[in-house]
Amino acid sequence: MPPYERHVFVCTNRRDPDNPKGCCALKGSEAVLDRFKEELHRRGLKGRMRANASGCLDACALGTSVVVYPEGVWYGGVVVDDVVEIIEAHLLGGRPVERLRMKGTAPVPVSQAAS
Amino acid sequence: MPPYERHVFVCTNRRDPDNPKGCCALKGSEAVLDRFKEELHRRGLKGRMRANASGCLDACALGTSVVVYPEGVWYGGVVVDDVVEIIEAHLLGGRPVERLRMKGTAPVPVSQAAS
Repeated sequence: MPPYERHVFVCTNRRDPDNPKGCCALKGSEAVLDRFKEELHRRGLKGRMRANASGCLDACALGTSVVVYPEGVWYGGVVVDDVVEIIEAHLLGGRPVERLRMKGTAPVPVSQAAS
Repeated sequence: MPPYERHVFVCTNRRDPDNPKGCCALKGSEAVLDRFKEELHRRGLKGRMRANASGCLDACALGTSVVVYPEGVWYGGVVVDDVVEIIEAHLLGGRPVERLRMKGTAPVPVSQAAS
């Protein structure tokens, strides 16, 4: 049962190849998601952590886009070979992978999120 | 640009109607997501709050499943007519809609989430 200690969402939105916005699916996001799922399962983390596909995360130019909650840490340009590092450093170690973080993003403290 | 004050994920997973697990799509989750998107847009909340489709949230029997981050509040059995209440009470007011919360779930404090 939910909730999860870490919940990873990987944008798998797909647009026409001619669309100038681009999309995460054409940058390989489905393979990134698969790798997250495989690694979480292989490490026995099912039930504690979860990876899910999501719709468009509105950072198309920066994809593959990934967001990790509850921290609200956003990653851009994620490729399959980054997944183990994100799992080990961030999901398990609590230290976000700085080199992959989207510029201009920062977690919103919950105390400021209410309006 | 992200991050969002509130980020809503609505499970839109679809299974064969004969599958005993059921699924959120066959309980109307796509309409729930559409309503979230419409209401957030109509209220001028785009950029502050976002609603996205997600893959299976693993609470199929309790669907339509919705999770709101960064709080990690899980809702079950959500229907279109619940959306305005969730937006007004929770997303804007900071008070989760208790009658819709999944039983057995509670937000995980970030301080406990690291392992």
